[in-house]
Amino acid sequence: MEKILIIGAGRSAATLISYLEGHSKKFGWEIVVGDMDIESVRSRVGPETNVVSFDVNNEGIRDNEIQKAGLVISMLPARFHHLVARSCMKYSKNLLTASYESEEMKAFEKEAKQKGLLFLNEMGLDPGLDHMSAMKVINSIKDAGHELLCFESFTGGLVAPESDNNPWHYKLTWNPRNVVLAGQDGPAKFIQEGKYKYVPYNRLFRRTELIEIDDYGMFEGYANRDSLKYIDKYSLQGVPTVYRGTLRRPGFCRAWNVFVQLGATDDSYLMKGVENMTYRDFINSFLFYHESDSVELKLFHDQHIDQDSDIIIKLKWLGIFDDTPIGLKKATPAQVLEHILKQKWQLSPGDKDMIVMWHKFIYRDNKTGKKVNKYSSLVVTGEDQVHTAMSKTVGLPLGVAAKLVLTGKIKLTGVLIPTMKEMYEPVLAELEEYGIRFKEKGRRRGDKCYFELFVKGLGQRPGT
Amino acid sequence: MEKILIIGAGRSAATLISYLEGHSKKFGWEIVVGDMDIESVRSRVGPETNVVSFDVNNEGIRDNEIQKAGLVISMLPARFHHLVARSCMKYSKNLLTASYESEEMKAFEKEAKQKGLLFLNEMGLDPGLDHMSAMKVINSIKDAGHELLCFESFTGGLVAPESDNNPWHYKLTWNPRNVVLAGQDGPAKFIQEGKYKYVPYNRLFRRTELIEIDDYGMFEGYANRDSLKYIDKYSLQGVPTVYRGTLRRPGFCRAWNVFVQLGATDDSYLMKGVENMTYRDFINSFLFYHESDSVELKLFHDQHIDQDSDIIIKLKWLGIFDDTPIGLKKATPAQVLEHILKQKWQLSPGDKDMIVMWHKFIYRDNKTGKKVNKYSSLVVTGEDQVHTAMSKTVGLPLGVAAKLVLTGKIKLTGVLIPTMKEMYEPVLAELEEYGIRFKEKGRRRGDKCYFELFVKGLGQRPGT
Repeated sequence: MEKILIIGAGRSAATLISYLEGHSKKFGWEIVVGDMDIESVRSRVGPETNVVSFDVNNEGIRDNEIQKAGLVISMLPARFHHLVARSCMKYSKNLLTASYESEEMKAFEKEAKQKGLLFLNEMGLDPGLDHMSAMKVINSIKDAGHELLCFESFTGGLVAPESDNNPWHYKLTWNPRNVVLAGQDGPAKFIQEGKYKYVPYNRLFRRTELIEIDDYGMFEGYANRDSLKYIDKYSLQGVPTVYRGTLRRPGFCRAWNVFVQLGATDDSYLMKGVENMTYRDFINSFLFYHESDSVELKLFHDQHIDQDSDIIIKLKWLGIFDDTPIGLKKATPAQVLEHILKQKWQLSPGDKDMIVMWHKFIYRDNKTGKKVNKYSSLVVTGEDQVHTAMSKTVGLPLGVAAKLVLTGKIKLTGVLIPTMKEMYEPVLAELEEYGIRFKEKGRRRGDKCYFELFVKGLGQRPGT
Repeated sequence: MEKILIIGAGRSAATLISYLEGHSKKFGWEIVVGDMDIESVRSRVGPETNVVSFDVNNEGIRDNEIQKAGLVISMLPARFHHLVARSCMKYSKNLLTASYESEEMKAFEKEAKQKGLLFLNEMGLDPGLDHMSAMKVINSIKDAGHELLCFESFTGGLVAPESDNNPWHYKLTWNPRNVVLAGQDGPAKFIQEGKYKYVPYNRLFRRTELIEIDDYGMFEGYANRDSLKYIDKYSLQGVPTVYRGTLRRPGFCRAWNVFVQLGATDDSYLMKGVENMTYRDFINSFLFYHESDSVELKLFHDQHIDQDSDIIIKLKWLGIFDDTPIGLKKATPAQVLEHILKQKWQLSPGDKDMIVMWHKFIYRDNKTGKKVNKYSSLVVTGEDQVHTAMSKTVGLPLGVAAKLVLTGKIKLTGVLIPTMKEMYEPVLAELEEYGIRFKEKGRRRGDKCYFELFVKGLGQRPGT
């Protein structure tokens, strides 16, 4: 029996565990889930799966469990992976994660190669599926001898249309804290038509693009962190436009920008007197003092919001002008905002989430010399509150990779991310069986690489 | 002979050194200036002053010089003070600085008291003169039994009217890097009418106040860091309004805000390809791509600047749209901007700087029950490029304090800032002999504490 140790069984591990359990008989696997909260995990896994108490900071437990495993999958928050990796190195175990490859992880490269081990990171949705689906098209364009001119890629974790019943068209389908802090780790960086572009946080949610996806309608995208890193990761040196972004439903970003502009997403200081504050007081603390004007009027004036704007509907719906006590003792602005959003953006029983991924490629055809557009898109809807779209799209790539490693189909070694054909071809092929299927389509357009739809009425391309 | 050791003889030390030299005969002082660059310092000090090579990181040199001194004044950047303080503690020497009291410095409190030593910080202009001049009025109001309702304080390092010949009405009279980074260390915090207020960086330069000072005209002020700290420092617990700000000439902040909004003041990352960039390219890297629109038009559109705005005049005057090569190899946006500003905002030979300080107090008279306004303001103009207003207002408080300590007039011990009567009374009195004289005036006004002049035409008080 080959033992698979899954460390950390949060919500996004559900489909991974189901997948492995479903294949355990055929391949003779024993599934072990290590978590701090064994009772909760016990109720969520199959009867043949072992659940063990696991504190990653306890070296004895960590070493003991990892030593017994044949393969380790860490679903812990990224900051703990290096501890897991150290024990994996000690006992020569392969390791899979769905997290961004950290510097600490990359430092194991040489030793992993020497020992013939694979430490595979970024094997979930984003990062993960984005790499694999993009590299598949990029390599097909390159293999045909065409010249790639533009690569754009957008991903969003959203609510499914059938569960979308609020004016933000958004619910919290993943870590709410990350939603509040999104965009705060330095300016967004990308390259467009050969020019490096930098978008600071305070402009991020106003430099949006509109994108339409067949059958699913319109989305808006804002730039996601450092796209320039992907030039090396994807071997895109010399490609004039490389841009990665995050998807929301149209109108989200403009309204969210109000919180950004107010300073309500700041996580760097504790506010004074939070324990006695209401939602209304919270908003007022970012607005100028006035002896008689209402908080609403001050906000609309300060943010230049028209009385009939859809932003007002979104803000009022959140209850931010209400005299509701916050009910926290100590909090940063970001923590207060997260607390408010959690009340309103929570998924109701029966609600389904939705993952949307959209890539655009422009290349110069090596025969005709003409520019050709190509698109690849994926929409995945959750089955229920356990097998969410997020859980499926994070867990299945990991599960399939685990199978490929354990069955010897993948013999790669070192600290890697899934950008190579050897990895993405079998994984994408098997994901199709689970309904995770990218739609590709081509279309000939103008001779410049612009984001998909221009903001109407501005008479120019949007902020890119 | 009592030895006074001045460590670090940058531009702002000129008046301090002159002051001490001028009193050295009378009091039998020997002046020693320790600096890395002894030749440059030698040309700037009197013939009887000793200049020694001094590297603060060299413990041997540091200990040796400090051991020989009777009093130490550190004019080094604040981050080095703790090294100086450690040696001062070792050899039981009093220490003066013009820098903010750091946590490291505060940690010497107990030991300083035990040894009977005075480590006096914040003894320059701002911090320094601001404390002393404000506390003088605050204590006079309290001593009379009145109830303080409002304290506001603004300081600016500006260019004197006779040397003001650019549309920003600003030149670099102190550390240019600090000018570019101003406001980036967290939101501005203050309390107004009993409400805590937070202003994020991206709104800081739009939440300005207008202030008029007799004979010097109009100024605008923006909130300066954390005013809440001063509630304890100045014993203002329960005072409904406490606000500190920085002064510029009107119109500066709105134009400066363009750089803030673009992300051009960001010091957190190195830009790509700076070595091949022009000023124009620099600005363009923060703007959306367009195949034909000019950088100017894109900027004006992006920032909603009217064609006839004074902002355009200011920006064009700086040359930011020119094809001038930046000429730096590696730089953050903030470093590029600093480099551009240095070319245009530099003081010409003969230019004079100006220091402006303005306090406002409102109290309830304990006899009449009426609210009373009181103002205290100071304007100091530089004499020449050596004895600048900055050098005078930083150096003279330090010099006078040194005299008071050495002559035994001040017997305080511990790690202190000059908020106590024992300190500010003799210092302010002697500063008047040097023309540093605060003008106080009272005026009865309405019953609320607002900043001085309201922005015209808005129909409401400005963003406070």
